[in-house]
Amino acid sequence: MLDGIAIVNPGDIEKRSFEMITEILGEKKFPPFHENIIKRVIHATADFEFAESMKISETAVAKAFEAIKSGCNIVTDTKMASVGINRKSIARFGGQIVCYMDDEAVALEAKQRNVTRASVCMEKAAKDENNKIFALGNAPTALIRLVELIKEGAVAPALVIGVPVGFVNVVESKELLKTAGVPYILSEGRKGGSNIAAAIVNAILQMIEDPR
Amino acid sequence: MLDGIAIVNPGDIEKRSFEMITEILGEKKFPPFHENIIKRVIHATADFEFAESMKISETAVAKAFEAIKSGCNIVTDTKMASVGINRKSIARFGGQIVCYMDDEAVALEAKQRNVTRASVCMEKAAKDENNKIFALGNAPTALIRLVELIKEGAVAPALVIGVPVGFVNVVESKELLKTAGVPYILSEGRKGGSNIAAAIVNAILQMIEDPR
Repeated sequence: MLDGIAIVNPGDIEKRSFEMITEILGEKKFPPFHENIIKRVIHATADFEFAESMKISETAVAKAFEAIKSGCNIVTDTKMASVGINRKSIARFGGQIVCYMDDEAVALEAKQRNVTRASVCMEKAAKDENNKIFALGNAPTALIRLVELIKEGAVAPALVIGVPVGFVNVVESKELLKTAGVPYILSEGRKGGSNIAAAIVNAILQMIEDPR
Repeated sequence: MLDGIAIVNPGDIEKRSFEMITEILGEKKFPPFHENIIKRVIHATADFEFAESMKISETAVAKAFEAIKSGCNIVTDTKMASVGINRKSIARFGGQIVCYMDDEAVALEAKQRNVTRASVCMEKAAKDENNKIFALGNAPTALIRLVELIKEGAVAPALVIGVPVGFVNVVESKELLKTAGVPYILSEGRKGGSNIAAAIVNAILQMIEDPR
Protein backbone atom coordinates (compact mmCIF):
# COMPACT_ATOMS: atom_id res chain seq x y z
CA MET A 1 0.00 0.00 0.00
CA LEU A 2 1.13 3.53 -0.71
CA ASP A 3 2.23 6.20 1.74
CA GLY A 4 -0.40 8.31 3.46
CA ILE A 5 -3.29 6.00 2.62
CA ALA A 6 -5.30 4.65 5.55
CA ILE A 7 -6.17 0.96 5.32
CA VAL A 8 -9.93 0.62 5.60
CA ASN A 9 -11.87 -2.57 5.01
CA PRO A 10 -14.07 -2.13 1.88
CA GLY A 11 -17.18 -2.97 3.89
CA ASP A 12 -16.40 -0.21 6.42
CA ILE A 13 -15.74 2.71 4.04
CA GLU A 14 -19.32 3.95 3.95
CA LYS A 15 -19.78 3.58 7.71
CA ARG A 16 -16.55 5.49 8.38
CA SER A 17 -17.61 8.20 5.90
CA PHE A 18 -20.90 8.74 7.72
CA GLU A 19 -19.06 8.88 11.07
CA MET A 20 -16.83 11.62 9.64
CA ILE A 21 -19.87 13.53 8.33
CA THR A 22 -21.49 13.27 11.79
CA GLU A 23 -18.30 14.52 13.47
CA ILE A 24 -18.05 17.50 11.12
CA LEU A 25 -21.74 18.41 11.52
CA GLY A 26 -21.08 18.54 15.30
CA GLU A 27 -23.98 19.98 17.27
CA LYS A 28 -26.22 20.49 14.25
CA LYS A 29 -29.51 18.60 14.63
CA PHE A 30 -32.14 17.59 12.08
CA PRO A 31 -35.60 16.02 12.41
CA PRO A 32 -35.67 12.20 12.27
CA PHE A 33 -35.51 10.87 8.69
CA HIS A 34 -34.36 14.28 7.42
CA GLU A 35 -30.94 13.61 8.92
CA ASN A 36 -30.42 10.49 6.79
CA ILE A 37 -31.35 12.36 3.63
CA ILE A 38 -29.11 15.34 4.33
CA LYS A 39 -26.16 13.16 5.34
CA ARG A 40 -26.48 11.13 2.16
CA VAL A 41 -26.44 14.33 0.10
CA ILE A 42 -23.29 15.42 1.92
CA HIS A 43 -21.80 11.95 1.36
CA ALA A 44 -22.42 12.36 -2.39
CA THR A 45 -20.92 15.84 -2.61
CA ALA A 46 -18.64 16.45 0.40
CA ASP A 47 -20.40 19.81 0.48
CA PHE A 48 -21.65 20.84 3.93
CA GLU A 49 -23.60 23.77 2.52
CA PHE A 50 -26.39 21.27 1.95
CA ALA A 51 -26.83 21.02 5.73
CA GLU A 52 -28.28 24.53 5.49
CA SER A 53 -29.82 24.59 2.02
CA MET A 54 -31.84 21.36 2.03
CA LYS A 55 -35.50 22.03 2.78
CA ILE A 56 -37.82 19.11 3.39
CA SER A 57 -41.55 19.74 3.74
CA GLU A 58 -43.34 18.26 6.72
CA THR A 59 -45.06 15.31 5.07
CA ALA A 60 -42.44 14.64 2.36
CA VAL A 61 -40.80 11.57 3.86
CA ALA A 62 -44.05 9.92 5.01
CA LYS A 63 -45.67 10.48 1.61
CA ALA A 64 -42.60 9.10 -0.17
CA PHE A 65 -42.57 5.98 2.02
CA GLU A 66 -46.26 5.40 1.28
CA ALA A 67 -45.87 5.92 -2.48
CA ILE A 68 -42.81 3.69 -2.82
CA LYS A 69 -44.40 0.92 -0.74
CA SER A 70 -47.43 1.04 -3.04
CA GLY A 71 -45.15 0.45 -6.08
CA CYS A 72 -44.99 3.92 -7.62
CA ASN A 73 -42.53 4.91 -10.35
CA ILE A 74 -39.75 7.43 -9.92
CA VAL A 75 -39.42 9.99 -12.74
CA THR A 76 -36.02 11.56 -13.38
CA ASP A 77 -34.92 14.30 -15.77
CA THR A 78 -31.56 12.73 -16.63
CA LYS A 79 -30.21 9.29 -17.39
CA MET A 80 -27.45 10.01 -14.85
CA ALA A 81 -30.02 10.27 -12.05
CA SER A 82 -31.86 7.21 -13.27
CA VAL A 83 -28.76 4.99 -13.25
CA GLY A 84 -27.74 6.40 -9.85
CA ILE A 85 -30.94 5.23 -8.13
CA ASN A 86 -31.08 1.76 -6.57
CA ARG A 87 -33.11 0.11 -9.31
CA LYS A 88 -33.38 -3.28 -7.59
CA SER A 89 -34.85 -1.68 -4.50
CA ILE A 90 -37.53 0.17 -6.51
CA ALA A 91 -38.30 -3.04 -8.41
CA ARG A 92 -38.80 -4.96 -5.15
CA PHE A 93 -41.73 -2.65 -4.35
CA GLY A 94 -43.12 -3.02 -7.89
CA GLY A 95 -42.07 0.38 -9.29
CA GLN A 96 -39.80 1.51 -12.09
CA ILE A 97 -37.40 4.34 -12.77
CA VAL A 98 -38.69 6.37 -15.68
CA CYS A 99 -36.82 8.90 -17.83
CA TYR A 100 -38.10 10.16 -21.16
CA MET A 101 -35.07 12.29 -22.09
CA ASP A 102 -33.86 9.86 -24.78
CA ASP A 103 -37.33 9.54 -26.32
CA GLU A 104 -37.14 10.68 -29.95
CA ALA A 105 -40.79 11.79 -30.06
CA VAL A 106 -40.07 14.02 -27.04
CA ALA A 107 -37.04 15.54 -28.77
CA LEU A 108 -39.04 16.23 -31.94
CA GLU A 109 -41.97 17.80 -30.10
CA ALA A 110 -39.63 19.99 -28.03
CA LYS A 111 -37.98 21.24 -31.20
CA GLN A 112 -41.27 21.98 -32.91
CA ARG A 113 -42.66 23.87 -29.92
CA ASN A 114 -39.32 25.57 -29.08
CA VAL A 115 -39.36 24.34 -25.49
CA THR A 116 -36.87 22.13 -23.69
CA ARG A 117 -36.99 18.35 -23.92
CA ALA A 118 -37.12 18.31 -20.13
CA SER A 119 -40.41 20.20 -20.06
CA VAL A 120 -42.00 17.90 -22.65
CA CYS A 121 -40.81 14.95 -20.54
CA MET A 122 -42.82 16.27 -17.61
CA GLU A 123 -45.97 16.47 -19.73
CA LYS A 124 -45.43 12.89 -20.81
CA ALA A 125 -44.71 11.79 -17.24
CA ALA A 126 -47.89 13.47 -15.98
CA LYS A 127 -50.00 11.11 -18.08
CA ASP A 128 -49.08 7.98 -16.09
CA GLU A 129 -50.79 7.98 -12.71
CA ASN A 130 -48.20 5.63 -11.26
CA ASN A 131 -45.51 8.32 -11.71
CA LYS A 132 -45.82 9.58 -8.13
CA ILE A 133 -42.27 10.69 -7.29
CA PHE A 134 -40.35 13.18 -9.43
CA ALA A 135 -36.59 13.43 -8.83
CA LEU A 136 -35.31 16.40 -10.84
CA GLY A 137 -31.62 17.14 -10.49
CA ASN A 138 -30.79 18.91 -13.69
CA ALA A 139 -33.29 20.99 -15.63
CA PRO A 140 -35.09 23.92 -14.01
CA THR A 141 -37.36 23.92 -17.07
CA ALA A 142 -38.56 20.45 -16.03
CA LEU A 143 -39.29 21.63 -12.50
CA ILE A 144 -41.06 24.78 -13.71
CA ARG A 145 -43.25 22.82 -16.15
CA LEU A 146 -44.02 20.25 -13.44
CA VAL A 147 -45.19 22.98 -11.05
CA GLU A 148 -47.39 24.40 -13.81
CA LEU A 149 -48.92 20.96 -14.39
CA ILE A 150 -49.51 20.55 -10.64
CA LYS A 151 -51.22 23.94 -10.45
CA GLU A 152 -53.40 23.05 -13.46
CA GLY A 153 -54.44 19.84 -11.69
CA ALA A 154 -52.87 17.65 -14.37
CA VAL A 155 -50.67 15.75 -11.93
CA ALA A 156 -50.57 15.21 -8.16
CA PRO A 157 -47.16 13.89 -7.10
CA ALA A 158 -46.62 12.29 -3.70
CA LEU A 159 -43.20 13.95 -3.63
CA VAL A 160 -41.20 16.32 -5.81
CA ILE A 161 -37.43 16.27 -5.31
CA GLY A 162 -36.38 19.62 -6.77
CA VAL A 163 -32.60 19.87 -6.92
CA PRO A 164 -31.74 21.30 -10.34
CA VAL A 165 -28.30 22.86 -10.61
CA GLY A 166 -27.07 25.93 -12.41
CA PHE A 167 -27.72 29.50 -13.29
CA VAL A 168 -30.74 30.28 -15.48
CA ASN A 169 -34.01 30.09 -13.44
CA VAL A 170 -32.54 27.50 -11.08
CA VAL A 171 -32.99 29.41 -7.81
CA GLU A 172 -36.42 30.59 -8.98
CA SER A 173 -37.62 27.12 -9.96
CA LYS A 174 -37.02 25.86 -6.43
CA GLU A 175 -38.80 28.82 -4.83
CA LEU A 176 -41.70 28.06 -7.18
CA LEU A 177 -41.80 24.45 -6.00
CA LYS A 178 -42.48 25.68 -2.45
CA THR A 179 -45.74 27.22 -3.74
CA ALA A 180 -46.97 24.09 -5.55
CA GLY A 181 -48.85 22.64 -2.58
CA VAL A 182 -47.18 19.22 -2.82
CA PRO A 183 -44.63 17.53 -0.55
CA TYR A 184 -41.10 18.51 -1.54
CA ILE A 185 -37.40 18.03 -0.87
CA LEU A 186 -35.27 20.79 -2.39
CA SER A 187 -31.90 22.52 -2.21
CA GLU A 188 -32.22 26.28 -1.98
CA GLY A 189 -29.84 28.20 -4.23
CA ARG A 190 -27.96 27.24 -7.35
CA LYS A 191 -26.52 23.94 -6.18
CA GLY A 192 -27.98 20.56 -6.95
CA GLY A 193 -27.40 17.81 -9.48
CA SER A 194 -28.40 14.41 -10.76
CA ASN A 195 -26.10 12.77 -8.22
CA ILE A 196 -27.99 14.59 -5.45
CA ALA A 197 -31.41 13.63 -6.83
CA ALA A 198 -30.27 10.00 -6.86
CA ALA A 199 -28.77 10.24 -3.37
CA ILE A 200 -32.07 11.54 -1.94
CA VAL A 201 -34.09 8.72 -3.50
CA ASN A 202 -31.54 6.19 -2.27
CA ALA A 203 -31.67 7.61 1.26
CA ILE A 204 -35.46 7.18 1.25
CA LEU A 205 -35.22 3.64 -0.12
CA GLN A 206 -32.65 2.72 2.49
CA MET A 207 -34.86 4.01 5.32
CA ILE A 208 -37.74 1.87 4.06
CA GLU A 209 -35.63 -1.25 3.51
CA ASP A 210 -33.57 -0.97 6.68
CA PRO A 211 -35.62 0.87 9.31
CA ARG A 212 -33.68 1.58 12.50
CA MET B 1 -45.50 31.43 -17.61
CA LEU B 2 -45.14 31.73 -13.86
CA ASP B 3 -44.09 34.73 -11.79
CA GLY B 4 -40.39 35.38 -11.31
CA ILE B 5 -39.26 33.09 -14.12
CA ALA B 6 -37.17 34.68 -16.88
CA ILE B 7 -38.12 33.65 -20.38
CA VAL B 8 -35.03 32.21 -22.06
CA ASN B 9 -35.01 30.45 -25.42
CA PRO B 10 -34.06 26.76 -24.86
CA GLY B 11 -31.13 27.11 -27.27
CA ASP B 12 -29.73 30.04 -25.26
CA ILE B 13 -29.84 28.56 -21.74
CA GLU B 14 -26.34 27.08 -21.83
CA LYS B 15 -24.83 30.20 -23.42
CA ARG B 16 -26.47 32.43 -20.80
CA SER B 17 -25.25 30.10 -18.02
CA PHE B 18 -21.65 30.38 -19.20
CA GLU B 19 -21.97 34.18 -19.43
CA MET B 20 -23.13 34.21 -15.79
CA ILE B 21 -20.21 31.97 -14.75
CA THR B 22 -17.79 34.32 -16.54
CA GLU B 23 -19.33 37.35 -14.81
CA ILE B 24 -19.06 35.73 -11.38
CA LEU B 25 -15.45 34.62 -11.96
CA GLY B 26 -14.65 38.29 -12.71
CA GLU B 27 -10.93 38.96 -12.99
CA LYS B 28 -9.88 35.36 -12.42
CA LYS B 29 -7.84 34.06 -15.38
CA PHE B 30 -6.94 30.53 -16.45
CA PRO B 31 -4.62 29.11 -19.11
CA PRO B 32 -6.24 28.48 -22.52
CA PHE B 33 -8.19 25.18 -22.60
CA HIS B 34 -8.09 24.97 -18.79
CA GLU B 35 -10.73 27.69 -18.65
CA ASN B 36 -13.26 25.62 -20.62
CA ILE B 37 -12.75 22.64 -18.35
CA ILE B 38 -13.09 24.61 -15.14
CA LYS B 39 -16.15 26.51 -16.36
CA ARG B 40 -17.85 23.28 -17.35
CA VAL B 41 -17.20 21.85 -13.88
CA ILE B 42 -18.74 24.98 -12.35
CA HIS B 43 -21.66 24.69 -14.78
CA ALA B 44 -22.26 21.12 -13.54
CA THR B 45 -22.09 22.02 -9.85
CA ALA B 46 -22.69 25.77 -9.41
CA ASP B 47 -19.74 25.51 -7.04
CA PHE B 48 -17.08 28.18 -7.54
CA GLU B 49 -14.67 26.45 -5.18
CA PHE B 50 -13.61 24.41 -8.21
CA ALA B 51 -12.07 27.56 -9.71
CA GLU B 52 -9.42 27.17 -6.98
CA SER B 53 -9.30 23.41 -6.44
CA MET B 54 -9.01 22.15 -10.02
CA LYS B 55 -5.40 21.31 -10.90
CA ILE B 56 -4.51 20.49 -14.47
CA SER B 57 -1.02 19.27 -15.29
CA GLU B 58 0.85 20.97 -18.11
CA THR B 59 0.45 18.38 -20.84
CA ALA B 60 -2.93 17.01 -19.75
CA VAL B 61 -5.12 18.68 -22.37
CA ALA B 62 -2.74 18.08 -25.29
CA LYS B 63 -2.30 14.41 -24.35
CA ALA B 64 -6.07 13.99 -24.01
CA PHE B 65 -6.68 15.56 -27.44
CA GLU B 66 -4.12 13.23 -29.00
CA ALA B 67 -5.49 10.10 -27.31
CA ILE B 68 -9.13 10.85 -28.14
CA LYS B 69 -8.30 11.65 -31.76
CA SER B 70 -6.52 8.32 -32.03
CA GLY B 71 -9.69 6.52 -30.90
CA CYS B 72 -8.87 5.65 -27.29
CA ASN B 73 -11.42 4.39 -24.77
CA ILE B 74 -12.50 6.30 -21.69
CA VAL B 75 -12.65 4.24 -18.47
CA THR B 76 -15.03 5.33 -15.71
CA ASP B 77 -15.58 4.03 -12.19
CA THR B 78 -19.36 4.53 -12.20
CA LYS B 79 -22.24 3.99 -14.58
CA MET B 80 -23.35 7.56 -13.74
CA ALA B 81 -20.14 8.96 -15.20
CA SER B 82 -20.34 6.69 -18.22
CA VAL B 83 -23.88 7.78 -19.14
CA GLY B 84 -22.97 11.43 -18.52
CA ILE B 85 -20.21 11.43 -21.14
CA ASN B 86 -21.04 12.32 -24.76
CA ARG B 87 -21.00 8.78 -26.12
CA LYS B 88 -21.65 9.79 -29.74
CA SER B 89 -18.67 12.09 -29.73
CA ILE B 90 -16.33 9.38 -28.40
CA ALA B 91 -17.72 6.95 -30.99
CA ARG B 92 -17.01 9.40 -33.83
CA PHE B 93 -13.30 9.15 -32.99
CA GLY B 94 -13.52 5.35 -32.76
CA GLY B 95 -13.42 4.98 -28.97
CA GLN B 96 -15.77 3.60 -26.37
CA ILE B 97 -16.79 4.38 -22.82
CA VAL B 98 -15.84 1.47 -20.61
CA CYS B 99 -17.04 0.69 -17.08
CA TYR B 100 -16.57 -2.67 -15.41
CA MET B 101 -18.49 -1.93 -12.20
CA ASP B 102 -21.47 -4.11 -13.16
CA ASP B 103 -19.23 -7.02 -14.19
CA GLU B 104 -20.15 -10.04 -12.05
CA ALA B 105 -16.68 -11.57 -12.27
CA VAL B 106 -15.26 -8.30 -10.92
CA ALA B 107 -17.73 -8.32 -8.01
CA LEU B 108 -16.86 -11.92 -7.17
CA GLU B 109 -13.11 -11.37 -7.31
CA ALA B 110 -13.40 -8.23 -5.15
CA LYS B 111 -15.33 -10.17 -2.53
CA GLN B 112 -12.85 -13.05 -2.52
CA ARG B 113 -9.85 -10.72 -2.17
CA ASN B 114 -11.61 -8.33 0.25
CA VAL B 115 -10.87 -5.30 -1.91
CA THR B 116 -13.29 -2.89 -3.55
CA ARG B 117 -14.89 -3.62 -6.91
CA ALA B 118 -13.52 -0.30 -8.10
CA SER B 119 -9.93 -1.40 -7.56
CA VAL B 120 -10.46 -4.71 -9.38
CA CYS B 121 -12.02 -2.68 -12.23
CA MET B 122 -8.76 -0.77 -12.60
CA GLU B 123 -6.77 -4.00 -12.88
CA LYS B 124 -9.14 -5.19 -15.59
CA ALA B 125 -8.99 -1.83 -17.37
CA ALA B 126 -5.18 -1.86 -17.31
CA LYS B 127 -5.18 -4.97 -19.52
CA ASP B 128 -6.60 -3.17 -22.58
CA GLU B 129 -4.00 -0.88 -24.17
CA ASN B 130 -6.71 1.22 -25.79
CA ASN B 131 -7.93 2.32 -22.35
CA LYS B 132 -5.91 5.55 -22.36
CA ILE B 133 -8.11 7.97 -20.40
CA PHE B 134 -9.36 7.21 -16.90
CA ALA B 135 -12.19 9.39 -15.56
CA LEU B 136 -12.65 8.52 -11.89
CA GLY B 137 -15.31 10.52 -10.05
CA ASN B 138 -16.32 8.25 -7.26
CA ALA B 139 -14.01 5.70 -5.70
CA PRO B 140 -10.68 6.74 -4.17
CA THR B 141 -9.84 3.03 -4.06
CA ALA B 142 -9.98 3.01 -7.87
CA LEU B 143 -7.65 5.99 -8.09
CA ILE B 144 -5.22 4.54 -5.52
CA ARG B 145 -5.09 1.17 -7.32
CA LEU B 146 -4.62 2.92 -10.66
CA VAL B 147 -1.65 4.90 -9.32
CA GLU B 148 -0.14 1.66 -8.00
CA LEU B 149 -0.56 0.04 -11.43
CA ILE B 150 1.05 3.09 -13.09
CA LYS B 151 4.01 2.94 -10.70
CA GLU B 152 4.40 -0.79 -11.36
CA GLY B 153 4.49 -0.07 -15.11
CA ALA B 154 1.33 -2.07 -15.75
CA VAL B 155 -0.50 0.83 -17.40
CA ALA B 156 0.48 4.17 -18.94
CA PRO B 157 -2.58 6.43 -19.27
CA ALA B 158 -2.55 9.50 -21.50
CA LEU B 159 -4.67 11.24 -18.87
CA VAL B 160 -6.07 10.47 -15.44
CA ILE B 161 -9.05 12.53 -14.33
CA GLY B 162 -8.99 12.11 -10.56
CA VAL B 163 -12.08 13.64 -8.99
CA PRO B 164 -13.36 11.13 -6.44
CA VAL B 165 -15.64 12.58 -3.78
CA GLY B 166 -15.96 11.90 -0.08
CA PHE B 167 -14.17 11.27 3.13
CA VAL B 168 -12.07 8.11 3.42
CA ASN B 169 -8.73 8.48 1.56
CA VAL B 170 -10.25 10.91 -0.95
CA VAL B 171 -7.94 13.88 -0.36
CA GLU B 172 -4.97 11.51 -0.12
CA SER B 173 -5.80 9.67 -3.36
CA LYS B 174 -5.64 12.92 -5.31
CA GLU B 175 -2.33 13.94 -3.74
CA LEU B 176 -1.05 10.50 -4.71
CA LEU B 177 -2.11 11.06 -8.33
CA LYS B 178 0.21 14.08 -8.49
CA THR B 179 3.14 11.72 -7.85
CA ALA B 180 2.21 9.18 -10.55
CA GLY B 181 4.16 10.85 -13.35
CA VAL B 182 1.22 10.91 -15.77
CA PRO B 183 -0.88 13.85 -17.06
CA TYR B 184 -3.74 14.58 -14.67
CA ILE B 185 -6.79 16.72 -14.04
CA LEU B 186 -7.90 16.63 -10.41
CA SER B 187 -9.90 18.47 -7.77
CA GLU B 188 -7.93 19.01 -4.59
CA GLY B 189 -9.85 18.30 -1.41
CA ARG B 190 -12.91 16.19 -0.69
CA LYS B 191 -15.13 17.44 -3.48
CA GLY B 192 -15.64 15.70 -6.79
CA GLY B 193 -18.18 13.34 -8.30
CA SER B 194 -19.25 11.33 -11.31
CA ASN B 195 -21.01 14.39 -12.73
CA ILE B 196 -17.70 16.27 -12.57
CA ALA B 197 -15.73 13.44 -14.18
CA ALA B 198 -18.26 13.44 -17.04
CA ALA B 199 -18.21 17.25 -17.33
CA ILE B 200 -14.41 17.26 -17.70
CA VAL B 201 -14.47 14.63 -20.46
CA ASN B 202 -17.28 16.50 -22.22
CA ALA B 203 -15.35 19.79 -22.04
CA ILE B 204 -12.37 18.09 -23.70
CA LEU B 205 -14.57 16.52 -26.38
CA GLN B 206 -16.22 19.85 -27.09
CA MET B 207 -12.85 21.59 -27.52
CA ILE B 208 -11.80 18.95 -30.05
CA GLU B 209 -15.09 18.97 -31.94
CA ASP B 210 -15.61 22.72 -31.92
CA PRO B 211 -12.20 24.42 -31.75
CA ARG B 212 -12.43 28.20 -31.37
